[in-house]
Amino acid sequence: MALADTRFEDRRRKLSTKLAERRIDDMLVTHLTHVRYLSGFTGSNGALLVSKDRSAKIATDGRYTTQIGEEVPDIPATIERRVAAALLETAKDGHRVGYEADYLSVAELEKLREVCPEGVTLVPVSGVIEDIRLIKDNVELTRLTEAAQLATEALEQLIEAGELRAGRTERDVAADLEYRMRKLGAERVSFDTIVASGPNSAKPHHQAGDRVLSNGELVTIDYGMHRLGFNSDMTRTFALGQVGALERELYEVTLAAQLAGVRAATPGTSLVDVDKACRDIIEDAGYGEYFVHSTGHGVGLDVHEAPSAARTGTGTLAEGVTLTIEPGIYLPGKAGVRIEDTLIITAAAPRVITEFPTDLTVL
Amino acid sequence: MALADTRFEDRRRKLSTKLAERRIDDMLVTHLTHVRYLSGFTGSNGALLVSKDRSAKIATDGRYTTQIGEEVPDIPATIERRVAAALLETAKDGHRVGYEADYLSVAELEKLREVCPEGVTLVPVSGVIEDIRLIKDNVELTRLTEAAQLATEALEQLIEAGELRAGRTERDVAADLEYRMRKLGAERVSFDTIVASGPNSAKPHHQAGDRVLSNGELVTIDYGMHRLGFNSDMTRTFALGQVGALERELYEVTLAAQLAGVRAATPGTSLVDVDKACRDIIEDAGYGEYFVHSTGHGVGLDVHEAPSAARTGTGTLAEGVTLTIEPGIYLPGKAGVRIEDTLIITAAAPRVITEFPTDLTVL
Repeated sequence: MALADTRFEDRRRKLSTKLAERRIDDMLVTHLTHVRYLSGFTGSNGALLVSKDRSAKIATDGRYTTQIGEEVPDIPATIERRVAAALLETAKDGHRVGYEADYLSVAELEKLREVCPEGVTLVPVSGVIEDIRLIKDNVELTRLTEAAQLATEALEQLIEAGELRAGRTERDVAADLEYRMRKLGAERVSFDTIVASGPNSAKPHHQAGDRVLSNGELVTIDYGMHRLGFNSDMTRTFALGQVGALERELYEVTLAAQLAGVRAATPGTSLVDVDKACRDIIEDAGYGEYFVHSTGHGVGLDVHEAPSAARTGTGTLAEGVTLTIEPGIYLPGKAGVRIEDTLIITAAAPRVITEFPTDLTVL
Repeated sequence: MALADTRFEDRRRKLSTKLAERRIDDMLVTHLTHVRYLSGFTGSNGALLVSKDRSAKIATDGRYTTQIGEEVPDIPATIERRVAAALLETAKDGHRVGYEADYLSVAELEKLREVCPEGVTLVPVSGVIEDIRLIKDNVELTRLTEAAQLATEALEQLIEAGELRAGRTERDVAADLEYRMRKLGAERVSFDTIVASGPNSAKPHHQAGDRVLSNGELVTIDYGMHRLGFNSDMTRTFALGQVGALERELYEVTLAAQLAGVRAATPGTSLVDVDKACRDIIEDAGYGEYFVHSTGHGVGLDVHEAPSAARTGTGTLAEGVTLTIEPGIYLPGKAGVRIEDTLIITAAAPRVITEFPTDLTVL
């Protein structure tokens, strides 16, 4: 626990430094993911006030009195239902207090303005905590790697148990995969598990439904587990028995694109170029119009977070950043393929933490 | 499917009427739950523009091209990633366009302002769609009842299978309950399943962890399933073998309070009085300070929605409203009890849709 405390304090110290640079006295943290990142508190109602002088205050409601004492022994806690208002009311005269403009709703801001002490100025802040989150520390990298490994293990178990096969529904497959993740330590899924079979595989975000899997078709599984605050994300497309020439071609092109994307993901490379490395291969094969999404995203406290590898955008990769590489081809009404790994960017080649074969697995 | 289409159109018609009353020309719906409620679209990126003249437009990105055609055949769709901006840009000169102030972030509003056509005014709107949602239609009541019945069935199966017993971890029990819900048709859980055993039962929102259940203690299970857009919510506290006199007393007081709350939940009763009906019994028994949350909330598209039965607030119950009655007593470090049902308010006695015994079940 002492280790954990230091980690949260380290993160708050980074935030305090950034606040001082921006001439902001206190930051009112209301996004629960950020409250957890900066304090360790996991409840469903909470807010945190971090000051440029490195002090902090936290608030939650009466349901979490016991829990906050255990999880956040190092920050004084206020027990009050209106958590953000309670903290804002303690801001000192003349202070500029930042709020999370990307998460606070227009109505919530309006309510805060009503209780804001005279002499305190509310200032919109965007991307500051996200910047700290972008480069993962060792504890985060360990947690992300563990989540990816456990999720991969669940998929291996599913296949070994014969639960991914023709004759079962998409929903049954998803239920079994989720159960195996849960038993391996997942607190929940990172997002609704996608099991998309046959023509459904042409819908990138199809959810697991009542369709029965058949031999001779593709099935795409895109899934992740949430554990100890962190997420995993991986996609594989499988062949159920022998599939046709079109399906095999889609797979080969997608795989070539995916491997090119992984190779391109090195420190200093622009995110647009990572996207282009994937996209060029799919476009050259004549399927460009069927790759309808971006190439990848970061994975951490959120399953989708910065950075974004897309056709447009800015930024370059750096050591300690996470990124998915997940090209796909989707032929409406026919079939689709997506192959996705999660990488940690290192000084050398990226480390693929979703260790599962990318060659076409025929079941 | 024709039935479903009419339902969405009915809801949009109600919204159009309310817009006209408020001199709002178009409503930009960005909260995904509301997009689904008003159109049937279930994707993870979408926006809807409903006009007072009853016309509508919808937008999503390229991942959902096929899906939106199937789910929303009756509204013209724009395929563009910046869904809200794309719709706002089509607003007519002189129009007042409402936005969802309770859900749109401050930063999102700022971005919309940047693309808002000159001559178009953005107007904050709160609670209008929620007002329509408050009174459930027959399809909604059927869906809510089905979800509650299936969730109850899952708990019955869990107990019959002997999966809720001493020697197992909270996590194992939660995993099994969730798996059974999934197999019975749940698309996901409505919220992280609470399995709180022994001293953990004194934490109202404890999550299922590694603690092993023991004989002689209480275990509280609070759980729900999400299916076809709707949620269920129920809590029961069980005794594992013989529990002590204190545990039995907590249970008896909580049950008396819960039954009083259910009896009070009739049309025309103020929500404060429903809360008071529960709270008085717990206070009279000397445990008032340990009932640390409100008495209940609505259940629908969100697992927590309007109305709220709490110590403060306004409003009265009406036919077709849903409400949980969930008093609890939590003695920190010792034990806790919560008993929760979900009700549909009717002209006569409320209909309890979570049909599971409330007498103490000893396992």
